[in-house]
Amino acid sequence: MHLYIGNKNLSSWSMRVWLVCTAFDLPFEEVLVRFSTPDQAENTFAQTMQSLHSNGKVPALVHDDHVIWDSLAICEYLAELFPAKHLWPEDRMLRARARCISAEMHSSFTSLRNHCPMNITANLAQQGQVLWSSYSDLRQDVARIEQIWAERPQPEGFLCGHFSIADAFYAPVVSRLISYQFAVHPSSQQYMHTMLAHPAVRLWIQGARAEIVA
Amino acid sequence: MHLYIGNKNLSSWSMRVWLVCTAFDLPFEEVLVRFSTPDQAENTFAQTMQSLHSNGKVPALVHDDHVIWDSLAICEYLAELFPAKHLWPEDRMLRARARCISAEMHSSFTSLRNHCPMNITANLAQQGQVLWSSYSDLRQDVARIEQIWAERPQPEGFLCGHFSIADAFYAPVVSRLISYQFAVHPSSQQYMHTMLAHPAVRLWIQGARAEIVA
Repeated sequence: MHLYIGNKNLSSWSMRVWLVCTAFDLPFEEVLVRFSTPDQAENTFAQTMQSLHSNGKVPALVHDDHVIWDSLAICEYLAELFPAKHLWPEDRMLRARARCISAEMHSSFTSLRNHCPMNITANLAQQGQVLWSSYSDLRQDVARIEQIWAERPQPEGFLCGHFSIADAFYAPVVSRLISYQFAVHPSSQQYMHTMLAHPAVRLWIQGARAEIVA
Repeated sequence: MHLYIGNKNLSSWSMRVWLVCTAFDLPFEEVLVRFSTPDQAENTFAQTMQSLHSNGKVPALVHDDHVIWDSLAICEYLAELFPAKHLWPEDRMLRARARCISAEMHSSFTSLRNHCPMNITANLAQQGQVLWSSYSDLRQDVARIEQIWAERPQPEGFLCGHFSIADAFYAPVVSRLISYQFAVHPSSQQYMHTMLAHPAVRLWIQGARAEIVA
């Protein structure tokens, strides 16, 4: 099972699936395809990914000669493939909630996504201040995320009990809130601390830092 | 089981889930909450939906005193609740593909979504012409949708064999392509005909027309 990902510092969609694979100790091999930069003569990233599947994006999972290319669909596929690992919560209603907030992350928060691309190693406090005062839809996005986080069952725990796909989907937001230094409530800060202490999240961040040094 | 939906003429996200419930003959009651218009003194739509769940949007499914509020998460919930109905394809790899294209529809195509809101009963050919020549990202969105449709197993069939959640997710796009009269390939036209002939799609469109007359 091969998981194609982009740069760990930048690729928020890759981060989600990689965290799930790592947190649940799934048997996978990472294939890191670096994003091409504008000064490169050829877009080797696009060439590599388009040779794999028609949407040409990361993440993509290759398993049994098939390619699964959407981060949420990959997670559903893995949840089916490894039922004993409980990638989604075992409780039916907690599982429904985990899927609601994951799918909401998948479809929404376009202002946060567009204005604040993930850049794990950067300090973007100044940009953050300008963005925060300029865009009401950005403030609304963060408010909705804080609301979702505040509804978690235990203040010291994850979004739906144990670490699940839902937390992996919100991990890039944790990184953004840190980089852009948006002021959030103590309850949100507590969740962010919980996430930052998770071994899989720490490993991904280490990988992002190593990319920048390299 | 109660499914809260918005106006049938306008609510593309509601259409998806309603089609799944109807096409698979699931036991549900429809609760139509009309969108408020700007001239109304109070936003009764927002009041109703926010009293139900914190995101305050349609569609929302109420079952066993729980609210599931995202269209994709509702479909996953229903697929679990009625396994014998096969809301997703039975074949594992076709199911993975169905989830990929459904999740891609959930997260992407923002240009088509923003520029071309669904309006089933309207003829928007003139607007369509202007939009089509103005926005390259809109043309890219439609090209990607046509690519996905062209990859279906049988030209005369649905996206992943039998009608599934994936088709329900692309039904609002079928409606948009008709309203805005974008020129699409014969293969896409064939898929659109197949969809328009489906009894659940016909029923929804009838409902949209009845709203306008009322």
